[in-house]
Amino acid sequence: MKAIVYEKAKTFTVKDVPKPVLSEGEVLIKVAYSGVCGSDLFIYSGTHPRAKAPLIAGHEYSGTIVEIHPSVGDAFKPGMKATVRPTYACGVCYPCREGVPHVCKSLKLYGIDCDGGFAEYSAVRAENVFALPDDIDLAAAALIEPVAVAVHAVRRSELKAGDVVAVFGAGPIGCLVGLMAKKAGAREVYVSDMNPYRLDAASSLGLWPVNAKDTDFAAVLAEATDGRMADVTFDCAGAGQTIMAASATTRVRGQVMVVASFHAPYPIDLLAVNFKEQQFTGTRVYTDADFKIACGMVAEDPALFKKIATVYPYADGPAVIDGIPKGADVIKALFSFE
Amino acid sequence: MKAIVYEKAKTFTVKDVPKPVLSEGEVLIKVAYSGVCGSDLFIYSGTHPRAKAPLIAGHEYSGTIVEIHPSVGDAFKPGMKATVRPTYACGVCYPCREGVPHVCKSLKLYGIDCDGGFAEYSAVRAENVFALPDDIDLAAAALIEPVAVAVHAVRRSELKAGDVVAVFGAGPIGCLVGLMAKKAGAREVYVSDMNPYRLDAASSLGLWPVNAKDTDFAAVLAEATDGRMADVTFDCAGAGQTIMAASATTRVRGQVMVVASFHAPYPIDLLAVNFKEQQFTGTRVYTDADFKIACGMVAEDPALFKKIATVYPYADGPAVIDGIPKGADVIKALFSFE
Repeated sequence: MKAIVYEKAKTFTVKDVPKPVLSEGEVLIKVAYSGVCGSDLFIYSGTHPRAKAPLIAGHEYSGTIVEIHPSVGDAFKPGMKATVRPTYACGVCYPCREGVPHVCKSLKLYGIDCDGGFAEYSAVRAENVFALPDDIDLAAAALIEPVAVAVHAVRRSELKAGDVVAVFGAGPIGCLVGLMAKKAGAREVYVSDMNPYRLDAASSLGLWPVNAKDTDFAAVLAEATDGRMADVTFDCAGAGQTIMAASATTRVRGQVMVVASFHAPYPIDLLAVNFKEQQFTGTRVYTDADFKIACGMVAEDPALFKKIATVYPYADGPAVIDGIPKGADVIKALFSFE
Repeated sequence: MKAIVYEKAKTFTVKDVPKPVLSEGEVLIKVAYSGVCGSDLFIYSGTHPRAKAPLIAGHEYSGTIVEIHPSVGDAFKPGMKATVRPTYACGVCYPCREGVPHVCKSLKLYGIDCDGGFAEYSAVRAENVFALPDDIDLAAAALIEPVAVAVHAVRRSELKAGDVVAVFGAGPIGCLVGLMAKKAGAREVYVSDMNPYRLDAASSLGLWPVNAKDTDFAAVLAEATDGRMADVTFDCAGAGQTIMAASATTRVRGQVMVVASFHAPYPIDLLAVNFKEQQFTGTRVYTDADFKIACGMVAEDPALFKKIATVYPYADGPAVIDGIPKGADVIKALFSFE
């Protein structure tokens, strides 16, 4: 089968690899669409601490079930549409044993710790497979994984109907978090970024774009709220200057959601955290329940979510992955294997 | 009357000053004991942003009501024992209007923004006065204000019965937070400091002292919890290295309470906040309800709380204030005006 293989730092290659053979408990998915995540770019950089070449990356994918190992029960049938929850937990660490395996101490993902979805076929454990409606738009279905990240971040926050929300970063997660905040009842959602293409995408989703290049985000929120500021700020940018600024965009007793993965410690305004009794809350991937919610939301309104997607033939994969960090006009790149 | 007056940086002076004359709504308290807080030392340094000389500092005090302005209702009578909630709010900012005046945008305190309790008499608005039982130990009653800080910090946390707790700093607030954590049902409370005198005080309160000079706090917690770490960590030290270490002493999905006032932004381990879904929560002073709880707790068991107190005649005030930052063997200094 064809796959986009991570071979070494700065090298993804489209090549023929053996089609996976099912092991016990696994389901074979014929991949339709596979999305590119920031962590795929991190893998591409050669500095991802876990991904080891050669690897079929990609952990946001949809497709059709084509084969089921006999050991798997009768939940799935060939021909079913499906997506994959790529996370799998160790089962024995204390978060696993205490019922929160999504924060497993050694959480792993298809496409990072083992082969994933940048290929025509992917063998996945049955417990990671989510069946989808027969008429689902499979391009939209490849967005379910990042939608689940946003669902989790918003559900884990204290956002209430009527709230004003600030989002740092109009990338895929920032856009989807903003969208989920609206669905959760946020009255106004302001999204800050410096990339005009991303700000236009945020705007198309009904969010208020703020260009951080020439506009003070805190001043915009102050004007919008008569000085009260955002009830909840989501940092989906992961830069030192955004997390430092997050206290200022957030009201007294408000919440800052740490959604982005920060690759280094950054200073935060601890005096404001103390004086304003603010809360900084981390949020990581999603629970199984969040993933199911995301499946339902995408199935209900695929056109809405596809506003952030651009589809490329898989053969263009290496060039697309190379282009995103250089500022290509794309929010969420999807590779078509159809 | 005699008062300990802040006259300029590095200068507190015991001198005669006019006895206060009551204004509308005020009550006159004959001060019995007045405690020294970290913010009094900050005033002494000359760098406190709000305190302006000349000032009678001190915002932790107890005494006897000796005079009541006729405009005040009949809640108080001369001869009643009392303490003072030193905080007063603007009443018009949004936290005030939304019912959380303790996080008023311009919160002020007796003893910082106007004259306080380092004097024989103090005139205080009736709404700031808490009547106490006739037989209360007035030295213990001067500890109610810092006890209220600890009550608020613990009640604002998500601490549950059976939890393991880590506290950075065995100063007055660290000791009292540890004690409140025990009252809230914490199974084991570990307190880290480098000062042996302070660690002994923590130990006398039933807390587990950890000398940070030669012992790795995270390793102690790991051993005590089989690697699970503290459910809640309270940073009562306010140093850069403690808040950076706080993620490591705290479990997955645990909470770090930012109790200390940090005078500068410090880095925190944001990757851990995200990966472990931790929560950093700010906590400031106390609500009126917390203060009332503290009154009751101190009245019930004055001997327990007095374990952290050392009483000095007020005439020694300037020397004591000068000695604390130099490492004097004292947790909470109380000045006697009796």
